[in-house]
Amino acid sequence: METFTPTAKTKLRRLPDRGAFDRETVYQILDEAFICHVGFVVDEQPIVIPTSFGRIDDTLYIHGSAASRMLRALTGGIPVCVEATLVDGLVLARSAFHHSINYRSVVIFGTATLVADDAGKMTALEAITEHIIPGRWAEVREPNAQELKATTVLAVKLEEVSAKVRTGPPKDDEEDMIVPVWAGELPLRVQTLPPIADPYMAADAAVPAHVSQYARGAKNN
Amino acid sequence: METFTPTAKTKLRRLPDRGAFDRETVYQILDEAFICHVGFVVDEQPIVIPTSFGRIDDTLYIHGSAASRMLRALTGGIPVCVEATLVDGLVLARSAFHHSINYRSVVIFGTATLVADDAGKMTALEAITEHIIPGRWAEVREPNAQELKATTVLAVKLEEVSAKVRTGPPKDDEEDMIVPVWAGELPLRVQTLPPIADPYMAADAAVPAHVSQYARGAKNN
Repeated sequence: METFTPTAKTKLRRLPDRGAFDRETVYQILDEAFICHVGFVVDEQPIVIPTSFGRIDDTLYIHGSAASRMLRALTGGIPVCVEATLVDGLVLARSAFHHSINYRSVVIFGTATLVADDAGKMTALEAITEHIIPGRWAEVREPNAQELKATTVLAVKLEEVSAKVRTGPPKDDEEDMIVPVWAGELPLRVQTLPPIADPYMAADAAVPAHVSQYARGAKNN
Repeated sequence: METFTPTAKTKLRRLPDRGAFDRETVYQILDEAFICHVGFVVDEQPIVIPTSFGRIDDTLYIHGSAASRMLRALTGGIPVCVEATLVDGLVLARSAFHHSINYRSVVIFGTATLVADDAGKMTALEAITEHIIPGRWAEVREPNAQELKATTVLAVKLEEVSAKVRTGPPKDDEEDMIVPVWAGELPLRVQTLPPIADPYMAADAAVPAHVSQYARGAKNN
């Protein structure tokens, strides 16, 4: 099935034309985002923590120290909301009211599940590492038994999930078209700067292609 | 006072060397971030929504349609967590375990307060518009009475607030220094692309300096 099913939580009540439930859109936003924002509740207090993540098909993985507050709370099977947003540009209208931001966002509602077995953890950690920068996992030292033990990995299923996308120019009111101000979009994108070698690297060490030719984009699954 | 006071909620229990409570750091991160992520709870379900915002001194403002689910829920004085994060680079270690992201984040715990009076709303909307792009408010049509009425503005005080910052190279284990892989940082930054004029603008309309010379950075208060 190529689309997620809207639910009471994910159905958009406002601006429904911005909503998207197709897997391609959801996957693309998640795969392009560097971090997600994990919301959970402890003693009635909402907490939102930014964290890196990975995705395999309809499963999102997060990880962290077994000692982290977030990981320990979420291991208890409490409800979680995971959100990721890409900012694509500034929308500059003729009226203050119609200023906006072009963005693509995904919101997932669910429950986190502990990935307990070493093979499952290794697969998730590969996805998280490859999400940071594709091509890296094959080059680096894999997690050892001690590191695996110190790392908690959680899975969140993409089931109750929706995307929202705003694109295009401002939507000014007809009567504002005469306001003498430049209106339009200022597109934004994330750019890489030249890589900085670790101080312990030889200064002339060759930068591998997965770093020098890095370009953020969606992966193919 | 130049620093915020750590509380039970904002005190960092892990990696405390990444923590910062000085106003300059907190302000700079908030002013550079395009959006924040607002976490709140409805019927025990955490919800995280990305939204634009503005800041004046120790007050953060968010706004939206009076009909929005988030704004209506938050108007009830429920606890809120507001988080903003800047991604500064990818940290490429020799071991998978030490891969990381260089980032700057702020987390605010508090309660949202309705800004009910028109003058207060106008001030907040100016801050939100100027946060999108400085220099804009003076150029555009200000909100009229109808728009003000249709817009809910909420204030969140910066009281329980902390920043976290990771910078610099990977921190590999001593025994991994011989792993034959390039290690270091791949810095990232948000870049503007050429502005796109609204379709209803004259194609040769001059792009004003606040757009053509736009550069994201901290403001001076």
